[in-house]
Amino acid sequence: MPSTSLVNDLFEEICRIPLIDPHSHIDPHHPVSQHLDDILGYHYYTELAHAAGMSQAPLHASVEPRERVRAILGHMDRYDNSAQYAWFLDIARTFLGFTGERISAGDTDALCDAAERIFRDPGWEAQVFRQSNLEKIFLTNEFDDPLSGFDTNKYVPCLRTDALVFHLKQPEIKQRLERATGVDVGDLPALKKALRKLFEHFTGNGAKACAISLPPDFAPKGPDANAAFWMLAELCREFRLPFDLMIGVNRNVYRGGVHQGRDLFDQRCSLIQYQELFNAFPEVTFCVSVLSSGMNQELVSHAWIFPNVVTCGHWWYSNIPTYIATDLRARLQAVPKTKQIGYYSDAYKLEFVLPKYNMYRRVLSEVLASDFVETGRMTDRQAIDLARQILRDNVQSIFKV
Amino acid sequence: MPSTSLVNDLFEEICRIPLIDPHSHIDPHHPVSQHLDDILGYHYYTELAHAAGMSQAPLHASVEPRERVRAILGHMDRYDNSAQYAWFLDIARTFLGFTGERISAGDTDALCDAAERIFRDPGWEAQVFRQSNLEKIFLTNEFDDPLSGFDTNKYVPCLRTDALVFHLKQPEIKQRLERATGVDVGDLPALKKALRKLFEHFTGNGAKACAISLPPDFAPKGPDANAAFWMLAELCREFRLPFDLMIGVNRNVYRGGVHQGRDLFDQRCSLIQYQELFNAFPEVTFCVSVLSSGMNQELVSHAWIFPNVVTCGHWWYSNIPTYIATDLRARLQAVPKTKQIGYYSDAYKLEFVLPKYNMYRRVLSEVLASDFVETGRMTDRQAIDLARQILRDNVQSIFKV
Amino acid sequence: MPSTSLVNDLFEEICRIPLIDPHSHIDPHHPVSQHLDDILGYHYYTELAHAAGMSQAPLHASVEPRERVRAILGHMDRYDNSAQYAWFLDIARTFLGFTGERISAGDTDALCDAAERIFRDPGWEAQVFRQSNLEKIFLTNEFDDPLSGFDTNKYVPCLRTDALVFHLKQPEIKQRLERATGVDVGDLPALKKALRKLFEHFTGNGAKACAISLPPDFAPKGPDANAAFWMLAELCREFRLPFDLMIGVNRNVYRGGVHQGRDLFDQRCSLIQYQELFNAFPEVTFCVSVLSSGMNQELVSHAWIFPNVVTCGHWWYSNIPTYIATDLRARLQAVPKTKQIGYYSDAYKLEFVLPKYNMYRRVLSEVLASDFVETGRMTDRQAIDLARQILRDNVQSIFKV
Repeated sequence: MPSTSLVNDLFEEICRIPLIDPHSHIDPHHPVSQHLDDILGYHYYTELAHAAGMSQAPLHASVEPRERVRAILGHMDRYDNSAQYAWFLDIARTFLGFTGERISAGDTDALCDAAERIFRDPGWEAQVFRQSNLEKIFLTNEFDDPLSGFDTNKYVPCLRTDALVFHLKQPEIKQRLERATGVDVGDLPALKKALRKLFEHFTGNGAKACAISLPPDFAPKGPDANAAFWMLAELCREFRLPFDLMIGVNRNVYRGGVHQGRDLFDQRCSLIQYQELFNAFPEVTFCVSVLSSGMNQELVSHAWIFPNVVTCGHWWYSNIPTYIATDLRARLQAVPKTKQIGYYSDAYKLEFVLPKYNMYRRVLSEVLASDFVETGRMTDRQAIDLARQILRDNVQSIFKV
Repeated sequence: MPSTSLVNDLFEEICRIPLIDPHSHIDPHHPVSQHLDDILGYHYYTELAHAAGMSQAPLHASVEPRERVRAILGHMDRYDNSAQYAWFLDIARTFLGFTGERISAGDTDALCDAAERIFRDPGWEAQVFRQSNLEKIFLTNEFDDPLSGFDTNKYVPCLRTDALVFHLKQPEIKQRLERATGVDVGDLPALKKALRKLFEHFTGNGAKACAISLPPDFAPKGPDANAAFWMLAELCREFRLPFDLMIGVNRNVYRGGVHQGRDLFDQRCSLIQYQELFNAFPEVTFCVSVLSSGMNQELVSHAWIFPNVVTCGHWWYSNIPTYIATDLRARLQAVPKTKQIGYYSDAYKLEFVLPKYNMYRRVLSEVLASDFVETGRMTDRQAIDLARQILRDNVQSIFKV
Repeated sequence: MPSTSLVNDLFEEICRIPLIDPHSHIDPHHPVSQHLDDILGYHYYTELAHAAGMSQAPLHASVEPRERVRAILGHMDRYDNSAQYAWFLDIARTFLGFTGERISAGDTDALCDAAERIFRDPGWEAQVFRQSNLEKIFLTNEFDDPLSGFDTNKYVPCLRTDALVFHLKQPEIKQRLERATGVDVGDLPALKKALRKLFEHFTGNGAKACAISLPPDFAPKGPDANAAFWMLAELCREFRLPFDLMIGVNRNVYRGGVHQGRDLFDQRCSLIQYQELFNAFPEVTFCVSVLSSGMNQELVSHAWIFPNVVTCGHWWYSNIPTYIATDLRARLQAVPKTKQIGYYSDAYKLEFVLPKYNMYRRVLSEVLASDFVETGRMTDRQAIDLARQILRDNVQSIFKV
């Protein structure tokens, strides 16, 4: 129902809001791409090409990057309907000067040449920040990351804790923890002491969040059921860090899949599993990401009732326009606007911030236009203010950046 | 796709259909508000204000009503994106003469003054009925309600049975039942006798429905699993009362929440759990409300197959425009139109009937316009007839009012 | 948002694509209707009429076909809002010369007369093929079907295996298997031998798929858990047949229902239950149908990751426009376009191919218009090519027809 010009006007204005991206996998030592292979090596492309019939041979480390790109582009006409293809087209047009209508295998050399030339510019990182209107971006740091050698004001550290909660029984993880903290982790009090040292190290180096991804059957019932997880929540309370919960991923489902292309989910997961946690830690803000629209309906209701539950982004398999639209619409209609973290890029390379946020901003513009402006509930200006609230202001207030 | 003028025309016509509201929590002895606090004390506002950061201090009984209103309005700019805010704006404009664009804390005194002046009019109740185009409204009566002192033709009694099914082991509930019926409830035959007396009392006083809300793990497999519930179904059959099943609520999930703002749900609930019940009582009409769009898809299919299953309203966490649209669309495409009870207000005060029904009627107009009129499947007139069928005619035929 | 004329243009072009319908229940010996009773005896009408209040008396074999039609039409004004009514109206207009606006009981004799006259034409079968732009249609054959007496190039056999997996312990099924194969099925090797004979018989007679419907709690973990099912997958690998998995149906839920109108589903079903199968048989293409939009979101993600998982049609309770739109949208945005089997009719009589595909093609045109053409992602021509890919090309390549 909304007019195209209204949607375009909103989109244009929303693109002017400087971004603070609250979740990514950027390596701050190598934040941008060097070769087109860094772009197309992203699991979204390798897994789609593989799912569409590409063998894994081109993915071997021994294969020349350009030949890997050629193989992935060579299968692109099998998935050029996808949102992921649209991201790549946006990258090619915005960053690589591509002017064609569609990208196919025949564009391999021209795109690789352009990428090598453009990416080698010493100002490339700064240019991507500028063209993406990006101000800061959160990282995903392993617990023993020294957090040194980069600007933590721009690349905001975040303590990722999957290994501590799920793999502490592996000798290697335990040793890494002991090495990082100097604590002999022999019992629970020692574990708490070691974890506290991590929090001191991280918050001392500008970390603004603690994060974890959780399988569908995880149900944190209390300190006895999963001591390490409960301690992390206690330390989030003590150090006043929000706790990002990324709920519902089954790891390694497709065992023959490409790197990072093996995980799936089980829709039979419920936020009710987290009720003890949400009740026990009213002082901790839980920024919750989910993988299905069924769970999003639960998330909307939980954020509407629990003061400490916040909706967070559109994660992974839910990060395509139609599910973003469904999930966003419900959040905008029922969750206090101060409790919504609109989006994060989840990017491994900075070049992906722009196309992913563009996808989100396009959907956001459409939803604001149809549900708020066209209905007379808001003026254009108020709709843009709402967009700024969920895109930027809430990231600042919730993560204290 | 539908034109705005078509949607508006349908909306206007649909608003002309006199309402019989088949489910509310109105107290017939105090059906309308006396102070704005009666409006904003509704849990939809207290829970959103609390979820958005308001402490519970303003909700204490000792706080002056006007100061409570000021606190809730003071947080409204954190949730003025919500459907609930839109209801309140509709109330303020329709009933309180509010002419501004947005409501904030600064409007507290003007709105409270207007409310006190308007609500004290002895004709206020009648005026709300008239302005809301409301003809009758169903109540939610505790089993020992004397049902006297009000016009049961206008305020239609409904026997609410949660306590009988889930709390009969509490001495207080058992005593209340014995007091209400004069039956010493010592065994199952005595329980049946007592329940029958309740049905006699209720149907003798114009009750038109029996109702219950049920947790997600409830699965009525037969008389042995839950004797009281099964007896209620038998008595619905005997007394020819429809049985409203409100399926899927988890009580007291957020234990520190505001009054009535503590309940949530678990999406992992299925109508398959009710198959024995639906098979055992073909003569009883079950009016089913659900809390998620996942369960709504099941409900659509069950109402399409089972003659005794009827879709009923848009309940609680599903009662926001985007979920109403999703759920309504499927019902209109797949459930016989004679088996859909379009909406109920669930209101605690009569002033909420109008804004809630307006929200529903707006969505209904959009869905009828896009799916039926614009596609050439119905004329405007036929679409309005369909709206009347699910808004009014079915309430009359199913509940025999 | 898309203009009506764009949608209509796409629809018209998409209707020009000749259909290969990859799943139906057509009896190749009696593929078309002889009486209107063959149309309205379809369970979609008998179950809706029954759910809307029709007793089962008119469905007895002793009732005159015309009187059965009169009874079903007599209840049609209770479900003339439904998608199923729209199919019937399409049939009446396209095949029976009906020119009215709505169909009701009063049309019984005229429609029955027209049907008898038209259906008796010896060229009727060919005419339905022509008017439906239908080229081939897949069957659902019991394992002991002789597959003779019809053109298997037009009516493509498909081995249906529910009985082999779920009812082999019934003496009658075992005897039928032994009779069909000449193998004494005493142990697992003998069972494998018998099943191989079925595959030889079916593939020797042009079968292009193996198919099965599965209950929500089915979880194929390996050969020990369900030997017959695992053998079927092995034989699909050996004979290079795609395996159609129709996942999630609960049989005989409404025990008093009409024939074929007793089954429902449980939304609490997950494709995760199939992970061992998908991992164990990378060489087998699994064409997966699901019954809910919750499972569709899982299916989209599984087809995006697993090379051997393909999305297939819009099945049964999901086969109404609003769920088709939701499910299709996600598939088009996230599943490689070469891995989507757009639609199948599931028809029992050829006359249903046209109205069901029309419903799908209408939704497909709307989604292509709004998500691809209006957004500038595709030209009209490219959108039509995408439609051809999922409607026809993929059926040819996946089933090798």
